[in-house]
Amino acid sequence: MASSSRLSPPKVPMELHVKNREKLLKSLRQHLAETSRPLHGFVLLQGGEEKTRYCTDHIELFRQESYFAYLFGVKEPGFYGAIDIATGKSILFAPRLPADYAVWLGEIKPLSCFQQQYMVSMVHYTDEIVGVLHELSNVLEKPLLFLLHGLNTDSNNFSKPAEFEGIEKFEKDLTTLHPILTECRVLKSDMELALIQFANDISSEAHVEVMRKTRVGMEEYQLESIFLHHTYMYGGCRHCSYTCICATGENSAVLHYGHAAAPNDKILRDGDMALFDMGAEYHFYGSDITCSFPVNGKFTSDQSLIYNAVLDAHNAVIAEMKPGVSWVDMHKLAEKVILESLKNGCIIVGNVDDMMVERLGAVFMPHGLGHFLGIDTHDPGGYLKGLEKLKGPGLKSLRTIRELQEGMVITVEPGCYFIDALLAPAMEGSNTAKFFDREGISRFKGFGGVRIESDVHVTAGGCQNMTKCPRQIFEIEAVMAGSPWPLN
Amino acid sequence: MASSSRLSPPKVPMELHVKNREKLLKSLRQHLAETSRPLHGFVLLQGGEEKTRYCTDHIELFRQESYFAYLFGVKEPGFYGAIDIATGKSILFAPRLPADYAVWLGEIKPLSCFQQQYMVSMVHYTDEIVGVLHELSNVLEKPLLFLLHGLNTDSNNFSKPAEFEGIEKFEKDLTTLHPILTECRVLKSDMELALIQFANDISSEAHVEVMRKTRVGMEEYQLESIFLHHTYMYGGCRHCSYTCICATGENSAVLHYGHAAAPNDKILRDGDMALFDMGAEYHFYGSDITCSFPVNGKFTSDQSLIYNAVLDAHNAVIAEMKPGVSWVDMHKLAEKVILESLKNGCIIVGNVDDMMVERLGAVFMPHGLGHFLGIDTHDPGGYLKGLEKLKGPGLKSLRTIRELQEGMVITVEPGCYFIDALLAPAMEGSNTAKFFDREGISRFKGFGGVRIESDVHVTAGGCQNMTKCPRQIFEIEAVMAGSPWPLN
Repeated sequence: MASSSRLSPPKVPMELHVKNREKLLKSLRQHLAETSRPLHGFVLLQGGEEKTRYCTDHIELFRQESYFAYLFGVKEPGFYGAIDIATGKSILFAPRLPADYAVWLGEIKPLSCFQQQYMVSMVHYTDEIVGVLHELSNVLEKPLLFLLHGLNTDSNNFSKPAEFEGIEKFEKDLTTLHPILTECRVLKSDMELALIQFANDISSEAHVEVMRKTRVGMEEYQLESIFLHHTYMYGGCRHCSYTCICATGENSAVLHYGHAAAPNDKILRDGDMALFDMGAEYHFYGSDITCSFPVNGKFTSDQSLIYNAVLDAHNAVIAEMKPGVSWVDMHKLAEKVILESLKNGCIIVGNVDDMMVERLGAVFMPHGLGHFLGIDTHDPGGYLKGLEKLKGPGLKSLRTIRELQEGMVITVEPGCYFIDALLAPAMEGSNTAKFFDREGISRFKGFGGVRIESDVHVTAGGCQNMTKCPRQIFEIEAVMAGSPWPLN
Repeated sequence: MASSSRLSPPKVPMELHVKNREKLLKSLRQHLAETSRPLHGFVLLQGGEEKTRYCTDHIELFRQESYFAYLFGVKEPGFYGAIDIATGKSILFAPRLPADYAVWLGEIKPLSCFQQQYMVSMVHYTDEIVGVLHELSNVLEKPLLFLLHGLNTDSNNFSKPAEFEGIEKFEKDLTTLHPILTECRVLKSDMELALIQFANDISSEAHVEVMRKTRVGMEEYQLESIFLHHTYMYGGCRHCSYTCICATGENSAVLHYGHAAAPNDKILRDGDMALFDMGAEYHFYGSDITCSFPVNGKFTSDQSLIYNAVLDAHNAVIAEMKPGVSWVDMHKLAEKVILESLKNGCIIVGNVDDMMVERLGAVFMPHGLGHFLGIDTHDPGGYLKGLEKLKGPGLKSLRTIRELQEGMVITVEPGCYFIDALLAPAMEGSNTAKFFDREGISRFKGFGGVRIESDVHVTAGGCQNMTKCPRQIFEIEAVMAGSPWPLN
């Protein structure tokens, strides 16, 4: 079969979530000890609930809440999960299902089945939370619950602490858990890395499949469909990490194209650049990959100029990445490489350091260089307690400003876009007008943009690019012309 | 290409929604006149909002709320829509988008663009609702708003009346609109029928594609992926009407298999029956189609027995359907045909009329015969004001008990399942034990079930089956063996 795959979905080791719980327990105990607090109480998280659409009985496909998925790996809705800080025991609370569930939704599994599947110490029903936790507790008064409450710095929303009937019979701690659990998620274990690697492998392969099948005259959404099909059919990935961005021509300058109001519905024209930002998710762990290429399979010199500017930035960053490196410095490095290329291409003129002072890079790359990746596409933890977002174009959009640490997985996604809404004011601005070569830049009206995005794992001595797509121009042109990937 | 299609997505006529609004206006004015109320005020609906997942910035793919979609056809989130009852003017209120929307999400369209696209009388911003409606109103005091509030009898949820700042400057009527608008949705116009027909055509073709590619050893979800890909790639259908049910073997007795807790993840075994209930949606209008067939491509005699029992019921119902026919009678007809076949097959014994009195049919078909289909898969309006749900197994699950009328689209989906949770008590029940041939029925342990589901349009003189899948056993076997469809 032309569209077959060399991959198949790997077995998911539930030990992964056992290790995640052990890691949290260790961090939390350490924190309690350091702050001279007793080592007891329970971590308690509420899993996600199935939702219906508006007033109808249309059920949206359920996807577990990410913190709950991290600790327990449960795919079913309606659960709670707890960890006993004194003993390390883990407890799942399963919903008590009505008898006709068996007719409509399937076998009602015995609790022992969940215990085995999810490798927890015990399983009870959700209506038994109060009794079970009180019984497990060694304190005479109200046992202490560590609940999840804290800010997601990407959405500015707060996570929802568990709620259940009888919660007033417990003491609640709403501040301790969130930063500690979030920090656990930032540094990936080997088992987590293996899943992110698989999500990258199947998504990389699907991107190659998309490149091969892209033709002038197709609809953007047809390439989305090819990607989704490849990752589900051969990778077992039912969910994507995010809605596919399948942008061609001028749409490729719209950073989050592809949503309902801009639904990947343009026809591919000869001469268009494509920017396809698509990533599959496997057992909650995601990938986030962008490929840019000409839809007709051959780069023009202008397309090469912009593409190589971005690729050089992408490669320069990856060459520098290692523990201790500042992500802000990496962002600025990417900007600088792109500005230098644009200067060499006679699109802008002047001193690049001066451009950096005026934040000209953000006119061409208004987003941040990358973000943590894991169970969420924008994985949390970008701003440790005390860290404040920077000011200024581009910098204020950074999803983290931390130093790199071994075990982080972060996207490297420089881009260069020609966005009228940003170019027009910059070309008239008193401090920035001088940098533009008006003739040079006029060629790029309607060009759109280029983004190259890989998922990079920070190792002890440097980093490893987990994404395996054709990146060099000759590689892309060869694959689009029918060569196998990797090239022989 | 092996998987190509003879179809392509049709142009969507926005006149469809103009007609929907005219139909509502006519019904509403008639109702107001009949109840001696003045013909003024505004219908006001709030469209759906984009939602993020839990505390993250992961945006779920937006799908418009169905009543709003019916009247206005708007695909973007964050809108309101109004109809002036006195003049018939239609007004859309668009969200005022921030300047950086252009960078991240795309072009900020001028209001005139929405006016043209959605064929409404005028467009304003959502923060202008109060002023615009007051200005349009001829009354001196508070203008009257007809808001949407009413029960969805499938979900038992209530639709959400529009909310906005300044609503206290209006009188509110919460009871008039819902039943009238719901009834408008029950009877489909020709333009609505054309979209439902396309959704049926592309989904029927995708079911054939799935049949052709089904092989022992595949995973259930791979067939889901093939279906989704075909309907999106060739039909432009980004949404499904509902989560795909791809059940094989014993899973085919789980009526709503395929959700997150039972995610189409079984391997197809030789001898399994497949029950694939999948339907695509095109411009909000859906399809809902089930095909059942042996995964190895050849029916055994037992599989033929159950399959033909269900097919005979399906065909008997469609042969009877026309305006004036009671849906409850159709449900009972399907039950009776199935019971007779099971009796002929020596699975049950005794008098079929006695079985009907004991509601034995519901042991094998615990769901209702079908439901209205339109912008929702379970389209509303099944229980007109005053109609009460029936009692008794099977009957209580009917999603409508109305008489058929010209213009209705309703699914005909008889099924026959071997569900331990229902069979065990029936085989021991004092009134039902006598009906079972224990040897006969023992062969069907683990068989699963068969469902055949078509979407049927009630016409003036009878009805038309909009679904075009292979249904006869010889047709299915031929298509699975590689014959073209329709057969030559």
